[in-house]
Amino acid sequence: MPGLTIGDTIPNIQADSTHGRISLYDYFGDSWGIIFSHPGDFTPVCTTELGMMAAKAEEFSKRGVKLVGLSCDDVQSHNEWIKDIEAFNKGKKVTYPILADPKREIFKELNMVDPDEKDPSGGAVPSRALHIIGPDKKVKLSFLYPASTGRNIEEVLRVLDSLQRATKHKVATPVNWKPGDKCVITPSVSDEQAKQMFPNGYETLELPSKKNYLRFTNV
Amino acid sequence: MPGLTIGDTIPNIQADSTHGRISLYDYFGDSWGIIFSHPGDFTPVCTTELGMMAAKAEEFSKRGVKLVGLSCDDVQSHNEWIKDIEAFNKGKKVTYPILADPKREIFKELNMVDPDEKDPSGGAVPSRALHIIGPDKKVKLSFLYPASTGRNIEEVLRVLDSLQRATKHKVATPVNWKPGDKCVITPSVSDEQAKQMFPNGYETLELPSKKNYLRFTNV
Repeated sequence: MPGLTIGDTIPNIQADSTHGRISLYDYFGDSWGIIFSHPGDFTPVCTTELGMMAAKAEEFSKRGVKLVGLSCDDVQSHNEWIKDIEAFNKGKKVTYPILADPKREIFKELNMVDPDEKDPSGGAVPSRALHIIGPDKKVKLSFLYPASTGRNIEEVLRVLDSLQRATKHKVATPVNWKPGDKCVITPSVSDEQAKQMFPNGYETLELPSKKNYLRFTNV
Repeated sequence: MPGLTIGDTIPNIQADSTHGRISLYDYFGDSWGIIFSHPGDFTPVCTTELGMMAAKAEEFSKRGVKLVGLSCDDVQSHNEWIKDIEAFNKGKKVTYPILADPKREIFKELNMVDPDEKDPSGGAVPSRALHIIGPDKKVKLSFLYPASTGRNIEEVLRVLDSLQRATKHKVATPVNWKPGDKCVITPSVSDEQAKQMFPNGYETLELPSKKNYLRFTNV
């Protein structure tokens, strides 16, 4: 199935939400954004996920990231369900909007279709997709998880920190990186440039190839 | 850009690799599989990632999961680079094959294109995509990460455990789940069925909606 992937510009979706009518471009503005889908309201994994997104709202806000949820249910259903999420989540408020897609169009446009799950009438339902959107409205990174598998919000925060650091410096983050760990200098930066760009220095690992591409630094 | 997404059957790629000529269907057989791409040999993040995949080979093997890497470099380059990976990785051997895609066709077919990175001649290069393939040759879950952001192999193992548990039992895994945590019973299972299917019992959380859909169990 064709669909939105990394590098693509997201469409400027207009939809009803728990915060009223929303245009995605206006909502995200010049910020980083996350749009994430869930198979359905009043279902178990989704309740835990949207609760955790609410609990971590401050972490997203600190990083300047705006959140928006999406499922095919209508706004009334979302509003009723939010009471369950907040109760499960010990009162932490769901402060981000959840889009309604009762015509079942938006989630297909956003490559958020679950291949195996169907609603009671046999219609397609959203997967647990999560796209990270840059300030330029392009998809920077995507998680495409099926209904069976709840996402890991710690991993979402980890990759946000990586993406934002890479945007600010000429670095990339190695496997399993977390904030505080060293980054690597990207190959497009020469050693001469690196000396100027990273005044605190960097360490070049010696490798059998004698190619000095593995350069670690703290930024 | 259109491309492979979850639910799609992977094409039966034939390609040269560090283990000789490979057909993906023959290689995966009836096993679970992972195909993961990297932007290029002799580049920093990739060296840390392929090293970690090698270090965790036993974890993948325990789960019956076959690994295969992919980049556009040729087999000779892969073989030279493996010496660097193994040196960086304190001698742990790269035991999985790495496919060569010098004609730059396979990675496009597999939705593994990095939107922002180019090789020195301006050609497209692979992203850090990782697809988990079920025994039915369908994509079950995908990570689409850009060149800047090394993957998290612990998250890959976590979702494998979730997918395999969900295949075996009628359960799904809540947000941030890890093995040992409780699972949730899927909504398609009635309370009557649940009593029989989960003889160790389950706990139903009380919610404002009075809909008893949040049922936790150990499997």
